[in-house]
Amino acid sequence: MDIVKTYIEKNKNRFIGELFEMLRVPSVSALKESEPKMEQMARLVCQHLLKAGADMAEVMTTSGWPVVFGEKIINRNLPTIMVYGHYDVQPPDPLDLWKTPPFEPEIKDDKIYARGADDDKGQLFMQIKAFEYMVAENKLPCNVKFLIEGEEEIGSPALKEFCKENKSILSTDVILVSDTNIHSLKKPVITTGLRGIAYFEISVTGPDRDLHSGLYGGAVANPVNVLSGVIAGMKDPEGKIKIPGFYDDVLEVDLNERKLLNEINLNEKEFAASINVEELSGEKGYTTVERIGIRPTLDINGIWGGYTGEGAKTILPSIASVKVSTRLVPNQRPEKVKEQLIRYLKEATPKSVRIELKTIQDGNAYVCPWDSKEVQSAAKALEKTLGVKPIPNRGGGSIPVITVLEEVLSAKSVLLGFGLESDAIHSPNENYPLKNLYKGIETLPWFYHFYCK
Amino acid sequence: MDIVKTYIEKNKNRFIGELFEMLRVPSVSALKESEPKMEQMARLVCQHLLKAGADMAEVMTTSGWPVVFGEKIINRNLPTIMVYGHYDVQPPDPLDLWKTPPFEPEIKDDKIYARGADDDKGQLFMQIKAFEYMVAENKLPCNVKFLIEGEEEIGSPALKEFCKENKSILSTDVILVSDTNIHSLKKPVITTGLRGIAYFEISVTGPDRDLHSGLYGGAVANPVNVLSGVIAGMKDPEGKIKIPGFYDDVLEVDLNERKLLNEINLNEKEFAASINVEELSGEKGYTTVERIGIRPTLDINGIWGGYTGEGAKTILPSIASVKVSTRLVPNQRPEKVKEQLIRYLKEATPKSVRIELKTIQDGNAYVCPWDSKEVQSAAKALEKTLGVKPIPNRGGGSIPVITVLEEVLSAKSVLLGFGLESDAIHSPNENYPLKNLYKGIETLPWFYHFYCK
Repeated sequence: MDIVKTYIEKNKNRFIGELFEMLRVPSVSALKESEPKMEQMARLVCQHLLKAGADMAEVMTTSGWPVVFGEKIINRNLPTIMVYGHYDVQPPDPLDLWKTPPFEPEIKDDKIYARGADDDKGQLFMQIKAFEYMVAENKLPCNVKFLIEGEEEIGSPALKEFCKENKSILSTDVILVSDTNIHSLKKPVITTGLRGIAYFEISVTGPDRDLHSGLYGGAVANPVNVLSGVIAGMKDPEGKIKIPGFYDDVLEVDLNERKLLNEINLNEKEFAASINVEELSGEKGYTTVERIGIRPTLDINGIWGGYTGEGAKTILPSIASVKVSTRLVPNQRPEKVKEQLIRYLKEATPKSVRIELKTIQDGNAYVCPWDSKEVQSAAKALEKTLGVKPIPNRGGGSIPVITVLEEVLSAKSVLLGFGLESDAIHSPNENYPLKNLYKGIETLPWFYHFYCK
Repeated sequence: MDIVKTYIEKNKNRFIGELFEMLRVPSVSALKESEPKMEQMARLVCQHLLKAGADMAEVMTTSGWPVVFGEKIINRNLPTIMVYGHYDVQPPDPLDLWKTPPFEPEIKDDKIYARGADDDKGQLFMQIKAFEYMVAENKLPCNVKFLIEGEEEIGSPALKEFCKENKSILSTDVILVSDTNIHSLKKPVITTGLRGIAYFEISVTGPDRDLHSGLYGGAVANPVNVLSGVIAGMKDPEGKIKIPGFYDDVLEVDLNERKLLNEINLNEKEFAASINVEELSGEKGYTTVERIGIRPTLDINGIWGGYTGEGAKTILPSIASVKVSTRLVPNQRPEKVKEQLIRYLKEATPKSVRIELKTIQDGNAYVCPWDSKEVQSAAKALEKTLGVKPIPNRGGGSIPVITVLEEVLSAKSVLLGFGLESDAIHSPNENYPLKNLYKGIETLPWFYHFYCK
């Protein structure tokens, strides 16, 4: 099957042109004003699917941003693989830290720089091109469907309803996803588990307007001070989350799998140096790999309140707000975490302030067993093209939709991603190495091959 | 001395016209683009002093906005009273909350509405008109000087240097200031102490860029979580400030003066209702009047970090910042508080983050004893015109310049102000009752009288 390498070599320049076209559309799902761009992007994905060989592809409306669905049915008796991906991207802020504009893709040092270069336009593009190759060279061993959404970065709020309503057209045997990291092409991993997420916005309101801190300071509860206390009380100095009941449902991972996970031999010094911190920090009793993969976490994603301009303004702010998210592990439920958080907030705040809590995003954690047919097909594909056996990995991030798909469509997802930690997804200067892009296109047909054998 | 009442009655209309002329100039010291307005305003004050009877008045340059100096010397052997005031005002934002434009003064319900109507153009105007009256009616018992600056609202950064350089022309026996509140004309207070201030900006930096909270969360210290812990650790649940050594230098106020201070009988329910909070909150063991007047405080004035836009962005922020200020009481020194804060920050933060601290503003607290000749002259003047004995009051706000004047000129300041809490200084719809304006003009000559007797 070296034909695929030849195919890639022959079409490289066209591929780059096509991917750049997708990267130029600022399809930021978090912003309401993205509407025309989201629609443009969905139509573009549709065209790409049709050009690659789909029998049909259409932009379907949802209660949120549109979904693109496409398929090529060879024979109803053959298995079906459904590719899931997303065409939306994270906001590019802070803009001033980008070395090149986020929506003007450029190649530098054999990497593509752009918002979405990896997450997920670049990785989705690999799927489309692998499909194109199999169609063109008559190598497709099964039916293929594509489910490409535009709300992954905001928690896929409309997808569940969409999948329920369109259950019959979405029926599939397995779901194939490229939206995770491979660690390195020399030491590949397959993500067998993903953390869930529960993301909230909390506001603390004190007086009904900003007050003069001299005339009122000392006599009125300050919302920022109160909020800081609330946040500080959420974790102890050893990194344990102190919200009562938080760990109750955590499914502990057995020592054997913990051993396998740690075979990745993460170099902590290099890891710390890569983000320019003097030392790493996290929950006591767990390695960094475990802290990221199999343990739940709590992080503040943003905070704001009061005067943030130049110089001094001596006010006691009326309101302070925070975005806080927890990453959940298998068996934990976002609804339960929300209840625990509300109870904690009630206990941790004085009567002199008012509290508001809003859920922004939620999703359950996910596991696909290492010894399943789905994961083993992916492992064989990687061994074929990289010449080395991959190891399992628990991803720290969340793709809440994966659990939704399993629930509604009763199919497991295989997370066969080719990203690197250094791709800076969600950050300025997101990038994706050309090598990983091409290796992805080369490897994916092997997954089809082993899965359908 | 009912002559002063007659004088005011006769000249009322002219007074209002003159004051309105001053209120129309947007002399906002915080904005660089105010330059032409600041100079216009300084020249206008000069003209007012000359018209009122000063021998000389001039606009003097400083390293910042200009100072206006004027004087009338009757006889070098007589005492000298120097009036201090300021012609600059706070920014008028938020503009949309003003019912009439901030720099188009209007009288409604016997109050003047405009930025600066009280703080300090209105109160400074009383001083100029009281002086005019004494000159016109030949009642001036001493020499008078005027020191009117344009940087009070930004912490008087240039005044210390200016006073040192012009020490001889500024020599005086006492400094008379109208820039405080009287509480009410029926229950007058004299401010005998003002809190000092130490205002800082603190930044906590973790990784060198925003990170994906899923891929890194749990393994890297989060700057907002760290900062929240730092802030939470600054105060205990009973409102005590926990920065080691913070209270060491606090000059405790004796029980007698505390009793006198509390005679103001603050209605806590009304106070809480006026700012729409369910209950007040502050340091245990002290009344609200004491918490605002004689106790040091610590408040967060603003906080920011990470993603603060719409929806969810799952990042672990690179940096979090806060503006924090302490109000200081007599004997506490901003430099020492800064040292204590730096030591606290070092102990309270892990090696995994970097801390920066910057001083934004500082100034010492001030006291003028209740039984001093200066304050007692003011008390007698108020009793004369209001028919009721005033009580002492400790102001919560800061006029850092007062301590500078004492240090450089070795003279005490008397804070004989006529503002009301409802004047909304520093807020939208600042106003000043005509009654207070006229009562001020009537009372001030009595201060001259009792002080020189």
